[in-house]
Amino acid sequence: MTVLISSLRINSARMLESFSTLSLIGSTGDGGVSRVSLSESHLAARTWFRSEVENAGLEFHVDSAGNHSAILPAFALAGEVAQPTGEIGLSQKPLLLRASTLLIGSHLDSVLNGGRFDGALGVVAALEVLRIVKENGIRLRVNLEAIDFTDEEGTLVGLLGSAALAGRLNPESLKKPRGGRQNLVEGMKRAGLDEEGIFKATRPKDSLAGYLELHIEQGKRLERMGINIGIVSAIVGIRSYRLSFIGRADHAGSTLMTDRADASLGASAFALAAREIVMGSFPNCVANVGKMDFIPGAFNIVPARVDLCLEFRSPDAEQFENLDAALMASAKEQAGRFGLELRSECFEKHVPNLMSSGIQKTFADSCNDLGLTHTSFASGAIHDGQSFDGICPIGMIFVPSVDGASHAPRELTKWDDCVNGANVLLQTALKLAG
Amino acid sequence: MTVLISSLRINSARMLESFSTLSLIGSTGDGGVSRVSLSESHLAARTWFRSEVENAGLEFHVDSAGNHSAILPAFALAGEVAQPTGEIGLSQKPLLLRASTLLIGSHLDSVLNGGRFDGALGVVAALEVLRIVKENGIRLRVNLEAIDFTDEEGTLVGLLGSAALAGRLNPESLKKPRGGRQNLVEGMKRAGLDEEGIFKATRPKDSLAGYLELHIEQGKRLERMGINIGIVSAIVGIRSYRLSFIGRADHAGSTLMTDRADASLGASAFALAAREIVMGSFPNCVANVGKMDFIPGAFNIVPARVDLCLEFRSPDAEQFENLDAALMASAKEQAGRFGLELRSECFEKHVPNLMSSGIQKTFADSCNDLGLTHTSFASGAIHDGQSFDGICPIGMIFVPSVDGASHAPRELTKWDDCVNGANVLLQTALKLAG
Repeated sequence: MTVLISSLRINSARMLESFSTLSLIGSTGDGGVSRVSLSESHLAARTWFRSEVENAGLEFHVDSAGNHSAILPAFALAGEVAQPTGEIGLSQKPLLLRASTLLIGSHLDSVLNGGRFDGALGVVAALEVLRIVKENGIRLRVNLEAIDFTDEEGTLVGLLGSAALAGRLNPESLKKPRGGRQNLVEGMKRAGLDEEGIFKATRPKDSLAGYLELHIEQGKRLERMGINIGIVSAIVGIRSYRLSFIGRADHAGSTLMTDRADASLGASAFALAAREIVMGSFPNCVANVGKMDFIPGAFNIVPARVDLCLEFRSPDAEQFENLDAALMASAKEQAGRFGLELRSECFEKHVPNLMSSGIQKTFADSCNDLGLTHTSFASGAIHDGQSFDGICPIGMIFVPSVDGASHAPRELTKWDDCVNGANVLLQTALKLAG
Repeated sequence: MTVLISSLRINSARMLESFSTLSLIGSTGDGGVSRVSLSESHLAARTWFRSEVENAGLEFHVDSAGNHSAILPAFALAGEVAQPTGEIGLSQKPLLLRASTLLIGSHLDSVLNGGRFDGALGVVAALEVLRIVKENGIRLRVNLEAIDFTDEEGTLVGLLGSAALAGRLNPESLKKPRGGRQNLVEGMKRAGLDEEGIFKATRPKDSLAGYLELHIEQGKRLERMGINIGIVSAIVGIRSYRLSFIGRADHAGSTLMTDRADASLGASAFALAAREIVMGSFPNCVANVGKMDFIPGAFNIVPARVDLCLEFRSPDAEQFENLDAALMASAKEQAGRFGLELRSECFEKHVPNLMSSGIQKTFADSCNDLGLTHTSFASGAIHDGQSFDGICPIGMIFVPSVDGASHAPRELTKWDDCVNGANVLLQTALKLAG
């Protein structure tokens, strides 16, 4: 049997059955799921994934960072020289010549009370891609690996599995994980992982041919534009600061307004200024003041100190630094305006990552072949692809999120859009690996 | 022995010894004290007070709200008709004719890690007034009672003892105390108090001739003006709100700035606006945004809700209502400006209290007699006197706070100022009760 590669489509009914079954694991009962990293429900989802992989006749693999994979070995795995089959008929020069594995992944963990599409769609679609390739007997030059990365959401560390696989996991991040050391230790124990082992999950750079991911947009752009597929041009850089505005505690009744060094004023003025700066001068960037802690925090005491949590993101390295400088200058100005001291602590960094232009082009070709509209923009969210910057070509596509909702049970992507995304993923993987 | 009343002065050395001993109880080691209401250290201070009272040969009394008193009975207590003695030679008509007890009080409890003067000075001075009157054999027409009120600071309820004595304690305030029900229950148990008993501490209105208090200013006005005594014209009204600015949680990376309903913006804009309103239009008032709680409160989630703790104070009833209206209108405006919903909950009220003009005049006369400078202003802080509004005449004086500091170990009033205040208290009590 010969197959016309360009006519291959994922099996929508089978993928829906997989997705629906998965959505029941850790279900919040209102459309969402709670499968925080290495929790019982998350591990149950991974057990389900393993059975899906084995039922599909694919190789199952779990590494020492807990990453779970389905593997479809390359046609040339046993030493044969891979040749594009006649049926594939690719016109372009293959992008991935020497490397052995094309990763297609996402994650099965969710935030607490999150949505059922974030991550899960990408894993289910990746698995479906492998099932289609396998059942159609397509001979590919590289291994296809559908991978579920550990702790993408950062309930514990963030990008834990992909960073470990890429050899980029910072030992400090395990010693002082953002989710708390005790939670990490308990999670590793539940999953049968250990700290030393996690660092052994690193794969040789040469073994990685590329990384593809299908994800929901988690924003409103595609929906608003009425476009099927978003081709990610870059993943934003992300930086966060704890800014402390420091004044003086005073009696809130007997201290005249003019005698106060009220820390709330600097923090409040900065929150407003940060928004103005981004909207006025950095239209491609975002900033968020997600938290303020008031110290001592009483009705009747003038705030002595406000610790403010600031995070900002930019798809462009130069803009990123300029935005950083503008925000820090503003913080200093607002502190000075109200007679406050400013202290800052920067404690999380990701640099902006460009997506492979070759893969972006291939995604666009696939969309065109499938009759799907597409556009290109930066991802405002962090994704596992970030871990592979400079290690292998990275490509990522988005499908529309209804009302832009994400990280909440109301998160929704229409099933037709899920299928469209999976077909673009399939066609692109075939073009790249064929 | 006849005594010229106007020449009587408190015994500075004895008062200093009392004050210094008291300052060691619950000492924080850096000049401050921690004697939160009904804690072990607070109860130890009360035990010390009892021994001081008994050593002075004064009657000791503790009521069912835990208020501790030294009592010096009136000369006419046993049915005699009180007559001003020739030595007193008051020119004005006595202010307090029918009532039987002039309370002179303050409190021995402190805030956590507070100062050693706040409250303690007033109790020690009141006790010293009674010692002087007793040892000089002065015959007064009313009982003098030096009283230490329970929980002035509100670690548990606030003005608990004075409100109970005045018959103004709200049963709700014990059911849902601001310091937490469990802390109140444990404190009452430590002190041997019970809820039912506390309400039985109410005294007949006719038994209260007046209430006098000496307190530290807890502000900078006297120090800045170089004036000895502040005669309190009013105790401010105080009202507090929890204002909830409600927006929508969104992904702080993938949600465009223009698509956000960021609760932090309304709260921040309000904090700045509240200050402008007070400073611009209500110069005698103060307002404080003492706390903001961000929900969910994460670096990477747009704040869905900010609960803001607002408190404001005014010495004047009409201004108080106008300020309330202006602040609430501003909160609504700022919420609307950023597409947020506003909810408000008002959960503490004290109306502004005017001090007795007769007692203010008597304080001024005493200052003049003693060669002390004086001025008049409203107290920005709440004091126990507030409980007696409409029940008996109230009078209060302040002595200067170094650098305005209070509710902190660096709280300080020079001893000469403490002595000045105690002498004004003594002379005023004699004029009123003579």
